[in-house]
Amino acid sequence: MGRTSDARERLLQAALDLIWTHSFSSVGVEQICEQAGVRKGSFYHFFPSKTDLALATYNDHWSSIQPQFDAIFSPLVRPLDRIDRWCEALYRHQKDLFDRLGCVCGCPYVNVGTELGTQDARIRNLIQQIFDRAQCYLESAVRDLGLAGIQTEEDIRATAQAIHSCELGLVVRAKVANDPEILRELIPAVHRLLGLSASRAQADIRSPDLDAPTRSQPPGKRAVNNP
Amino acid sequence: MGRTSDARERLLQAALDLIWTHSFSSVGVEQICEQAGVRKGSFYHFFPSKTDLALATYNDHWSSIQPQFDAIFSPLVRPLDRIDRWCEALYRHQKDLFDRLGCVCGCPYVNVGTELGTQDARIRNLIQQIFDRAQCYLESAVRDLGLAGIQTEEDIRATAQAIHSCELGLVVRAKVANDPEILRELIPAVHRLLGLSASRAQADIRSPDLDAPTRSQPPGKRAVNNP
Repeated sequence: MGRTSDARERLLQAALDLIWTHSFSSVGVEQICEQAGVRKGSFYHFFPSKTDLALATYNDHWSSIQPQFDAIFSPLVRPLDRIDRWCEALYRHQKDLFDRLGCVCGCPYVNVGTELGTQDARIRNLIQQIFDRAQCYLESAVRDLGLAGIQTEEDIRATAQAIHSCELGLVVRAKVANDPEILRELIPAVHRLLGLSASRAQADIRSPDLDAPTRSQPPGKRAVNNP
Repeated sequence: MGRTSDARERLLQAALDLIWTHSFSSVGVEQICEQAGVRKGSFYHFFPSKTDLALATYNDHWSSIQPQFDAIFSPLVRPLDRIDRWCEALYRHQKDLFDRLGCVCGCPYVNVGTELGTQDARIRNLIQQIFDRAQCYLESAVRDLGLAGIQTEEDIRATAQAIHSCELGLVVRAKVANDPEILRELIPAVHRLLGLSASRAQADIRSPDLDAPTRSQPPGKRAVNNP
């Protein structure tokens, strides 16, 4: 049973790596099995189809990175620090992948969402759920910022949506330019959306946490992605 | 010769339609030929490969929509109107496609850029060039706005980049949600990036054009896309 369980894990990891660095349609079950070291017969023991594997892969991937989101967006961290660290973690992760693989791989959720959005409702719905979670983290941080001009729930939601949109677009631009440095634009863009000039950013923020520790989460093997 | 020329055009149109509504990897040469009503032998007379067809398709597509960009971003149009109309045209086009096809197809450039960014440098570079053009239009409009706080070339470029990123991200979100109404968020987000509150937007703008006609461009068959 131990071995069986391990095979499933290896299929998930191989699917994540291959689809992320290539695309869903260009990667076949055979290639995934080969990279995972799993026989094709075993594949269908675990997953009825490549789509089912992809669904399990992205669910598993989200589960693996959620603790990092929880840490970055912890209520113990100052609200603006949460957002800034999220931006920094996104940059750092794309930069690490770029240094390792020589290319900006972009966000696995954006990649598969744009590739399969019109073709597979199950994948599309899962990516939408993951986007909703990112939105939820951002809304919480924006709400806790308590900035003048962003007080109503409508404004908070709209601001978080704009931040999220900006981030997704930057990841697309970074991939197309094959340049992770483009993600450095995220913090100033987000501050602009929050109505904070660069110099005003720290001074303007309500600080409900006072001396709370500011926790940082270095990206691990599965670092924060870009839902 | 007339017939030959027509076959090439039909291949370009079929490739655009099929890749846009599906994806590059999921559409084969045979399927493109079938939709275009062109024999496979003729295909290779025009294009050495599917990638070469895609390059010609996106170049051709850009050429077909550039006049609309030129009209929307005409110096005769007030700067904020240029940006607002660009946002409206993007929404209208995705909405039209959605009403016709039942799905948000997203931006053809984003789709293929995220799908093939790590796999094909020629496609990636072409999409980068098209993104650069969009950036150029936006920079010109932001510069002409002459807003306080966005005066230096660095600020102008950064603001245009943030607007472009926001737009690309919104198109991704609209596709993943399969909801064109998400693109309605673009104008308020852009105004926020410009430091304009909704109510202040009109009053704050320098109006160098005074009584110049404000031209509107209803999206045609090939309406403004989302580079």
